[in-house]
Amino acid sequence: MSASLTILGFNSAIPTVTSSPTSQFLEMGERCFLIDCGEGTQVQLRRAKARFSKINHIFISHLHGDHCFGLPGLIASFRLLGRETPLHVYGPKGIKELLETIFRLTETHKGFEVIYHELQSKKSEKIYEDHKLEVFTIPLDHRIYCNGYLFKEKPKERHLDMQQVSKYIEIETCDYQNIKNGKDFILSDGYVLKNDVLTNDPSKSVSYAFCSDTRYSESILPLINEVDLLYHEATFLHELKEMADYTGHTTALEAARIARKANVGKLIVGHFSNRYHDLTVFLDEAREVFPNTNLPQALVPVEIL
Amino acid sequence: MSASLTILGFNSAIPTVTSSPTSQFLEMGERCFLIDCGEGTQVQLRRAKARFSKINHIFISHLHGDHCFGLPGLIASFRLLGRETPLHVYGPKGIKELLETIFRLTETHKGFEVIYHELQSKKSEKIYEDHKLEVFTIPLDHRIYCNGYLFKEKPKERHLDMQQVSKYIEIETCDYQNIKNGKDFILSDGYVLKNDVLTNDPSKSVSYAFCSDTRYSESILPLINEVDLLYHEATFLHELKEMADYTGHTTALEAARIARKANVGKLIVGHFSNRYHDLTVFLDEAREVFPNTNLPQALVPVEIL
Repeated sequence: MSASLTILGFNSAIPTVTSSPTSQFLEMGERCFLIDCGEGTQVQLRRAKARFSKINHIFISHLHGDHCFGLPGLIASFRLLGRETPLHVYGPKGIKELLETIFRLTETHKGFEVIYHELQSKKSEKIYEDHKLEVFTIPLDHRIYCNGYLFKEKPKERHLDMQQVSKYIEIETCDYQNIKNGKDFILSDGYVLKNDVLTNDPSKSVSYAFCSDTRYSESILPLINEVDLLYHEATFLHELKEMADYTGHTTALEAARIARKANVGKLIVGHFSNRYHDLTVFLDEAREVFPNTNLPQALVPVEIL
Repeated sequence: MSASLTILGFNSAIPTVTSSPTSQFLEMGERCFLIDCGEGTQVQLRRAKARFSKINHIFISHLHGDHCFGLPGLIASFRLLGRETPLHVYGPKGIKELLETIFRLTETHKGFEVIYHELQSKKSEKIYEDHKLEVFTIPLDHRIYCNGYLFKEKPKERHLDMQQVSKYIEIETCDYQNIKNGKDFILSDGYVLKNDVLTNDPSKSVSYAFCSDTRYSESILPLINEVDLLYHEATFLHELKEMADYTGHTTALEAARIARKANVGKLIVGHFSNRYHDLTVFLDEAREVFPNTNLPQALVPVEIL
């Protein structure tokens, strides 16, 4: 499955002329997901030439303004552009009251259904599933209830090894699907042909984990184990570790530790404090621990696998 | 008094890469006012190099999103920048519930006082006054309760005509202020020296009227009579007059008629529908009726007088 991430904004707290608060546009197969929606996200979506109408699912990590203040404007614009397709909004309990109060007082008539999926569990949950994909929450440790999100392609079918299969005249075309699904084949004499004799491993399923905002937390490791791409916040350098803990954030060194312990494919760090002007300091600190670390580049799509 | 208007955004409804929804930064004397606050206003303020900290009064015309969705983010940024000065917010009844609900659910701790001035009168009111300035509402006719705002320098002192004053030995320095204030002077023999013998007219007081959004409405004429600068919405060309009426907006021709009937100094039209790409059509239509019409130029300060 093709999977591409376009980071729309990655700075923390205050939007500036050159950087936007958190938002990401994720394409996996035919699906388009929006993750977080800081102020100005709709304009960043236009800059990225992402088609608004393809977004049917929005995932909000937490209700701090730099992750959600762009949502009312985006939804209002959906309406003005004639949207009729229902929109699913996933986010912390309170997101429905927040948006519906805004829509009522600003007389924003949506004209399409907004389906709220309010989250309050402190354990990981599967919150979305279709025939190819699943999305799970990644409970995080911030000042306010906060989830990351894990986007995971379902395991693919195994590949038939036709050289092997053709040796057994009893295996018919109608048996192929069961074998691709991993089942053994039992010959008429009772002999069990093990599945791994008849098939090769499927191509890798793609996975992406988004973790922002959070203190360093090893409890997320089982959830993000071996994901192809991890986006993890790194608001501060490690010299400000105390500040990071106090404000519920992570340092670049810690983000890299998480990536190494989870054995992820690659790491992108983001959500930098505005106090830093030269962002390569984050890269230098993280690469000491996890070499395959990169800085985000706004509006430039990244292939996940 | 020096008075300068910086238009931060002037399009209607949907923000684009090249244009922002309504917001204006008005400097009159030492005062800085923000008028309306569409999404992205805080970034436009940065682009305009306007100092955030100088804004103590924000005037919101109405609660449609393209005029107020930037307010929560701006106020959150004020807090992050360490603001302590109280902030006055003027706007339709409901603005307090809107902002306070957002602040509660997003755990935005302001750290400074927000003083709400909720408006619901359908008649013009004086809502602000200091020793040099007054601000009045201009009730407008939109789909939702909406006010324009009139910013008016108070009449200045009259200028003493020292050639005349020096002829009368009885007039002492301590009398000057009364004479500047327009009082006659009574000589000891009972003769009344008329004020206009002793003084010349003061220099002109500056005034600015902001009118957005509204149907064509002549009821505003007495309020905006002879203002130096009128900003008036012109969402459509006159060929879409029906659409303008239906959506509660004005055409360029009508905005120019208002300017002519009110005998204003100059007119800027704005709040254009996104359907128009070449904005000079608005200028052509309006100038037929009111030649001193201009298009807004975002981020370029305009001297009002």
